[in-house]
Amino acid sequence: MDFRPILYINGILLSVLSLSMVFPMLADFYFGYDDWKVFFVCIIFTAFSGGALIISNKGHDFDITTRQAFLLVNSSWLFLPTYGALPFWLSSLDMSITDSFFESMSGITTTGSTVIVGLDYAPAGILLWRAILQWLGGIGIIIMAMSVLPFLKVGGMQIFIAELSENEKALPRTTQLAANIIAVYVALTIICALSYMGVGFQMFDAIAHALTTISTGGFSTFDSSFSHYHSPHAEIVATIFMIMGGTPFVLYLKALKGNLKPLWTDDQMRWFLSILFITTVSLSSYLVANQDMTIGEALRRSSFNIVSVMTGTGFGSGDFNAWGGFSVSLFFFLMVVGACAGSTSCGIKLFRFQVLYSVTKVQIKKLLNPNGVFIPHYNGKPMPKDVPSSVMGFFFVFALGFSVLTVLLSFVGLDFITAMSGAATAISNVGPGLGDTIGPTGTFKPLPDSAKWILSFGMLLGRLELFTVLVLFSPHFWKR
Amino acid sequence: MDFRPILYINGILLSVLSLSMVFPMLADFYFGYDDWKVFFVCIIFTAFSGGALIISNKGHDFDITTRQAFLLVNSSWLFLPTYGALPFWLSSLDMSITDSFFESMSGITTTGSTVIVGLDYAPAGILLWRAILQWLGGIGIIIMAMSVLPFLKVGGMQIFIAELSENEKALPRTTQLAANIIAVYVALTIICALSYMGVGFQMFDAIAHALTTISTGGFSTFDSSFSHYHSPHAEIVATIFMIMGGTPFVLYLKALKGNLKPLWTDDQMRWFLSILFITTVSLSSYLVANQDMTIGEALRRSSFNIVSVMTGTGFGSGDFNAWGGFSVSLFFFLMVVGACAGSTSCGIKLFRFQVLYSVTKVQIKKLLNPNGVFIPHYNGKPMPKDVPSSVMGFFFVFALGFSVLTVLLSFVGLDFITAMSGAATAISNVGPGLGDTIGPTGTFKPLPDSAKWILSFGMLLGRLELFTVLVLFSPHFWKR
Repeated sequence: MDFRPILYINGILLSVLSLSMVFPMLADFYFGYDDWKVFFVCIIFTAFSGGALIISNKGHDFDITTRQAFLLVNSSWLFLPTYGALPFWLSSLDMSITDSFFESMSGITTTGSTVIVGLDYAPAGILLWRAILQWLGGIGIIIMAMSVLPFLKVGGMQIFIAELSENEKALPRTTQLAANIIAVYVALTIICALSYMGVGFQMFDAIAHALTTISTGGFSTFDSSFSHYHSPHAEIVATIFMIMGGTPFVLYLKALKGNLKPLWTDDQMRWFLSILFITTVSLSSYLVANQDMTIGEALRRSSFNIVSVMTGTGFGSGDFNAWGGFSVSLFFFLMVVGACAGSTSCGIKLFRFQVLYSVTKVQIKKLLNPNGVFIPHYNGKPMPKDVPSSVMGFFFVFALGFSVLTVLLSFVGLDFITAMSGAATAISNVGPGLGDTIGPTGTFKPLPDSAKWILSFGMLLGRLELFTVLVLFSPHFWKR
Repeated sequence: MDFRPILYINGILLSVLSLSMVFPMLADFYFGYDDWKVFFVCIIFTAFSGGALIISNKGHDFDITTRQAFLLVNSSWLFLPTYGALPFWLSSLDMSITDSFFESMSGITTTGSTVIVGLDYAPAGILLWRAILQWLGGIGIIIMAMSVLPFLKVGGMQIFIAELSENEKALPRTTQLAANIIAVYVALTIICALSYMGVGFQMFDAIAHALTTISTGGFSTFDSSFSHYHSPHAEIVATIFMIMGGTPFVLYLKALKGNLKPLWTDDQMRWFLSILFITTVSLSSYLVANQDMTIGEALRRSSFNIVSVMTGTGFGSGDFNAWGGFSVSLFFFLMVVGACAGSTSCGIKLFRFQVLYSVTKVQIKKLLNPNGVFIPHYNGKPMPKDVPSSVMGFFFVFALGFSVLTVLLSFVGLDFITAMSGAATAISNVGPGLGDTIGPTGTFKPLPDSAKWILSFGMLLGRLELFTVLVLFSPHFWKR
């Protein structure tokens, strides 16, 4: 296999990473933190690495093969968190290599689990860097979900090829499509930051939270996350932009061309909005009945937390562990379900449930009418033949991955709830888990190093839709 | 739809149930418990109901349709537990209607969750009745898995049609096959009872435990289950016969014809024995390292409990909740996985994992070689084309059923661990759950009535492989 194009593209990505380190350096400099020197060193080192990769591998053929594409995706999601971990490791926060890598992987995968205690007093540069990592990870995954995964046919993503090429008539090339998506992403981030400022955030916090809201990442600049503000308005802004982050970005492009309807008629969107509505109403009723909340308080708390968990953001406002069994089990399943494919959110994703639902309906019809011919549909069109088995393979591998991660985490000493919810939150890229240690009011800091490496691997697995990583372990991959 | 053949067969089944009530009546009479009168009344009532159904519906066409078959299976698994609940309701144990139905459903589905506290002092008749319900449920499910489910194509069971018809060359008809299976089942039960007597059980306890071991049901005659005996020999006997109960019974028929090899070369058996071996070794090592057990003690405890959970029996020997997170998560997943299809055990069952594993392998090969033609295999033969999607539909519905049960249980007030493990243990027909209330040392008695009805439905759903029940909820089922 020719590794050169892979190294070349990684070189470009590292250069982008290096450039994005300029902002935290400026922030540290502006706010008077000494850590600006750390970022300066990291910029030089990352730029040098990136430049070296570009120069030594340029000028070759860029018609990359399937195998190269898989290797490219995997290697870039290892290169970036590794270089992204440098500022944590060198910073005044005195973090170990394990903690630095964990934090960086948690950032770039938009997970949002943190090992840092004392965010309120941390240097501005590091706070901004965490937010930027999530923002880069968010746009990275949208572009991957549109340009790479469908063509690699990962986990049923090929179902979106038709939708993309339909668009392609208007938008000539993938690069053009990517550029438009990036423009939308930047615009939404700016609007989000301005909205946060409108509800009283300081500019720095508004930017940092905007970066992690639209990317459904969930890093905050305060240990207490959104509880810091005790502001219903702030939570409403966050809720709206988390939902926007969990929406397939291709729908925004359609909307910009005047076709607004898919924003609520798209199959994924209909389920997304319905599930948010139904679960918010049920949880609110439950909270009013069992936790002595007023209707307003219950609606506010449940909508914010449900959206935060289902989109995989993981912002906290109060400890939902304390709301009783119903909320815990609801959050656990929402975490795993996730929002829409083609957005920044993670988890199994809604279209897979819709494919399985459609297949199961056909199944039941067939049980009753064995000779009938029934074809499962998605978004009103018959599904490509290979989609159901891709999706089901994904389901199986997801369940297996979740089980293996849980067993490994408990083997290194975590209790059952921590192990299980840790595995779920990592593989679904959500952020907080359940229980006292890693729950919404805790952090991942107290976990043993081995658990942090297992969780980092789980985040990568989840973010790259499992199969992208697992093909590398197949002996077929390495055969000539 | 013509309900008469359905009612007729239910009449026959009720007559069998009525006959089987004679044994607990005799036991109560022999041991001097007044409850023999209860059984006498129940025998008359059940026999009368059964007889009435037979007489009023006999003489009709018995070529039943697919719809009738589904309705027959469902109705018989509702008729039997309802009539089976009568002795509990009328007995001196003073049980509510809810508790009686729960106990009876837990028996006939071979689950083994109990709401009775004080088994050690309960009347002999009731103890025997619980065991008989499980024994009848066990043989019922084997026969269903061989004669009904594959032809209804429920959850991929059609994969076994070839195997059965291959056998059919030697064994001319399904009834002959069923008769042979029943003979094997009776013989194994007798050998098991004798073995229990050989390790020191009293005859009554030996019979009761034999009935619930081979059916992988798990009801005991003592509150403390196998901890009552503190006997390694008793546990070894139980372990062996639980494994035999988790083995596909068709393999015994082959063995009796001199073809012993499938007992360890059959795809399901290879995985079954390998998983038991691997998990026993890992759990033992973990217990030696973390719980200060000797190697012998660790091997004994882990093998007994692993086999008990994986086969869905649920006999207890000590509280595995107290062995740390690793054992809890291991038991949780083994519970859901289950043993072999065609046996008395439940859960998702191994062949489904093998089908998905095979499909996933093909998937990965296809990712790398999109134009290649790869066909998934099972037991060395290419799979029928409709099996993968049936199995995956099953997986989806199982996960969905588990999630909905968990959310419902937590909604009626159970904490997360109790709700989640209760849902898992019910839908997998295992018996004990996790946590303080329903864990291996607790019972289901303290749960609210609503939870008991939800769990009863979960047991039925799991035992009938979900689809069999769910088709009834499809509007297509009731359309002409």
